Amino acid sequence: MSALNDLKARYADINALSSAIAIMDWDQQTYMPRGAAEARAEHVGALSRIAHELSTDDAFGKLVSQSKNEAQSEDDLAMVRVLQREYDLKTKLPAEFVAEKSRLAAIAHEDWVKARAENNFAGFAPTLERMFEIARQEAEFLGYTDHIYDALLDQYEEGAKAADCVRMFEALKGPNVELVKAIKERGRPIDDSRLHGEWPNPLQSEFTEHIVKAIGFDFERGRQDAAPHPFCTTFSIGDVRLTTRYKPYIGSAIFGSLHEAGHGMYEQGSPMAWDRTPLAGGVSLGIHESQSRTWENIVGRSKAFWQRFLPDLQAKFPTLADISLDDWYRMINKVEPSFIRVEADEVTYNLHVLVRFEIECDVLTGKLAVKDMPEAWNAKYESYLGIRPKSDSEGCLQDVHWSMGAIGYFPTYSMGNLLSYQIWNKLVADLGDVDDMIARGEFAPILGWLQEKVYRQGCKFPPKELVMRVTGKPMGAEDYLAGLGAKYRAIYEL
Amino acid sequence: MSALNDLKARYADINALSSAIAIMDWDQQTYMPRGAAEARAEHVGALSRIAHELSTDDAFGKLVSQSKNEAQSEDDLAMVRVLQREYDLKTKLPAEFVAEKSRLAAIAHEDWVKARAENNFAGFAPTLERMFEIARQEAEFLGYTDHIYDALLDQYEEGAKAADCVRMFEALKGPNVELVKAIKERGRPIDDSRLHGEWPNPLQSEFTEHIVKAIGFDFERGRQDAAPHPFCTTFSIGDVRLTTRYKPYIGSAIFGSLHEAGHGMYEQGSPMAWDRTPLAGGVSLGIHESQSRTWENIVGRSKAFWQRFLPDLQAKFPTLADISLDDWYRMINKVEPSFIRVEADEVTYNLHVLVRFEIECDVLTGKLAVKDMPEAWNAKYESYLGIRPKSDSEGCLQDVHWSMGAIGYFPTYSMGNLLSYQIWNKLVADLGDVDDMIARGEFAPILGWLQEKVYRQGCKFPPKELVMRVTGKPMGAEDYLAGLGAKYRAIYEL
Repeated sequence: MSALNDLKARYADINALSSAIAIMDWDQQTYMPRGAAEARAEHVGALSRIAHELSTDDAFGKLVSQSKNEAQSEDDLAMVRVLQREYDLKTKLPAEFVAEKSRLAAIAHEDWVKARAENNFAGFAPTLERMFEIARQEAEFLGYTDHIYDALLDQYEEGAKAADCVRMFEALKGPNVELVKAIKERGRPIDDSRLHGEWPNPLQSEFTEHIVKAIGFDFERGRQDAAPHPFCTTFSIGDVRLTTRYKPYIGSAIFGSLHEAGHGMYEQGSPMAWDRTPLAGGVSLGIHESQSRTWENIVGRSKAFWQRFLPDLQAKFPTLADISLDDWYRMINKVEPSFIRVEADEVTYNLHVLVRFEIECDVLTGKLAVKDMPEAWNAKYESYLGIRPKSDSEGCLQDVHWSMGAIGYFPTYSMGNLLSYQIWNKLVADLGDVDDMIARGEFAPILGWLQEKVYRQGCKFPPKELVMRVTGKPMGAEDYLAGLGAKYRAIYEL
Repeated sequence: MSALNDLKARYADINALSSAIAIMDWDQQTYMPRGAAEARAEHVGALSRIAHELSTDDAFGKLVSQSKNEAQSEDDLAMVRVLQREYDLKTKLPAEFVAEKSRLAAIAHEDWVKARAENNFAGFAPTLERMFEIARQEAEFLGYTDHIYDALLDQYEEGAKAADCVRMFEALKGPNVELVKAIKERGRPIDDSRLHGEWPNPLQSEFTEHIVKAIGFDFERGRQDAAPHPFCTTFSIGDVRLTTRYKPYIGSAIFGSLHEAGHGMYEQGSPMAWDRTPLAGGVSLGIHESQSRTWENIVGRSKAFWQRFLPDLQAKFPTLADISLDDWYRMINKVEPSFIRVEADEVTYNLHVLVRFEIECDVLTGKLAVKDMPEAWNAKYESYLGIRPKSDSEGCLQDVHWSMGAIGYFPTYSMGNLLSYQIWNKLVADLGDVDDMIARGEFAPILGWLQEKVYRQGCKFPPKELVMRVTGKPMGAEDYLAGLGAKYRAIYEL
């Protein structure tokens, strides 16, 4: 059994390096003084290189191969499968290509910051063209059979294909556009101006920790800090860090914290025996997002949730004391087409993603030239959301991702939205009246079900298999559309 | 010039790993949730092992040797010298010995915690005997010519010898014991009960950041957090972290912060060009301690300092508003023989160190059996400090160090005390009326002098050479004794 043990030991070293890098990144976004930036970048770069070497050298590849014959248990077999996939993904890309991509991404990021600030798409276009060319090369190195997009998407969502996305958006597009339109034209308007104001940061911190603790995020094995852009990061199963942000819109911290806590509880839910093995943690971006959206939207934006927590919120922020539960519930579920994806509500969110997916595919396959991207972008916003960006800064220059070379992962956001409802419906079928539990603040049965079905599975099964195991069917749009439709038609009295 | 460049690159990787370990340690003592402990220990262990391998393998040794012929500049020559010394120190100890020491130290630490809690020296004695045996073996591996203690001490203070310590304590002992006795018998008593009370942590944090910033600690390249045991740690020249603690005794945070800021400003003072090279940072524990003690005691416990800052303190803590400058100055300089070293005042501190040095030497050379240590310890406290511990928990079981295998480094505390006055006197000779500067809150000339003479030298010169360069003479006790005597005879009206 020596190759398998050596493999586990080698992976534990790689995991130690990854954990150190995660801590350094977390520190950089929470507490690091400004003067530290240059050395921190060098340090993270050095550790990344050492980890990359350890996880791509021939010795590691050989250990993976040899371990296949030794692995007996389900867990060991799964572990070897995961490591083989990771090894293949990493070694298919030549070292010079990876270095060149990093180099260009660093430049592209600078260019993008400048272009967005100056609303100068033309100045950024040549750089963006290069990043798409890099993505095309990457796809060729990784290989694909059906669509060039498949190779890129698979890195974030194992086994997912462009065809899955096309099918997903095909199902979504009509009903979603129609719902947005109906709300805009016929819905009873919602005034959420009361949510805007000055909310002292310490109180926001206390309240968000209160609700996040209540739903089941374990503060013995994690914490919450403030950061400019909320994220969740994992150093080990016993150490999962959330961040949130404090804005003049009170929903920012509340739903940001619930969202990250969804990611965090998924990470905390892996079996402790899997710590420092490749089976720990969330299996894919789509499944991960399904959990953050579950706790943010399905639970956190439900009336039952606020039946329990609105009094606590009002005790903490007395200026909100006269808002009724019904009014509060409507305010936090206001739908409004807007230009910026990260601020989008639950109903319009997928339409933002759709725009990006279509444009990525068209540019990758040469159907759309980068220089024509702004026009395509604006036309799609007009068609799907009924609004047209007045500038490229609030249009196709808004996202950081393409400048980083992260092309092919936007659809995982929509997969997360679909899967959140699909998994939730199964949970409700099993548990019965969960609204009543939520209203009483009893989250243990809900969290327990998700832990058993999803979180405790870690990375053992590929995402598509996990979805089948949990819900009994492949990912589809019906649960999502039914849930969303029922909720928002009621809210907007359509 | 390829070996030298390779050496620098290799060192940069080792530095990245060390920095990551430092961040993980810092996080562990400031923000880490409890559930993270086990994985954190594994991660730190893995990174330490990788760093140790990189810095002790034959390839590294060869690079160091080859670089000697290539190094031309003063800095490169110094760098190679430092790396050769570090390589020798690390490679003289066989890997099995290092592993065995770590293993025993982990057990010894547990045993010590238990023994101290239960006041059971007899139960700890066999473990302690093993740790001293390990220290003897370590000294043999490292080698020495005059005294077994030399080999151990040299690890913390390059070139320092037992004979230096004997000379130092010989000079100190009489005058120091006499001063303590005179204060006790004839001094005008000091009542410092006003310093004890409840001080809100946020106010303590704000005030200590205020004074630490005023003396010159750069918050663009560092920060201060709370930790159970104050420390200073360096991730890079641009990222130096202080910690302090908030206690019912207000002096704890104030002088703890000033002490750590002294360490921190030394670390921040290295030339930026030396970042991620072995020339960055403080050169030895003794020199480091001289700077923490300078800012804590010579500056921070001076009347001039509080002429500037007492009004600020009183504005922050109005219950102190009626205390006069003279009374405050006496309160913070109260001398009182006590059992616990870490709580000792400036006058009695060296006597605590002396007890430990004498006992370490006697046990190492076989003059004292471990089982007889409590009696020897108590007799020395009675003789030097005039008090006798009532239990071993407040006697020879109080320090964590021996259980960790850190035998041979206590004297560096006293070296720091001596050097703080010796360097300060040179500073005063160069700058003139520094009291007046301090009273006006003008610290830039003082910090500037220390930066030029000490901090900017980093690890370029061995500590003994640095002392000669800065003060024109080897370390001696006369400046310290004169300074201490004058200050405390005035305070106690002797």
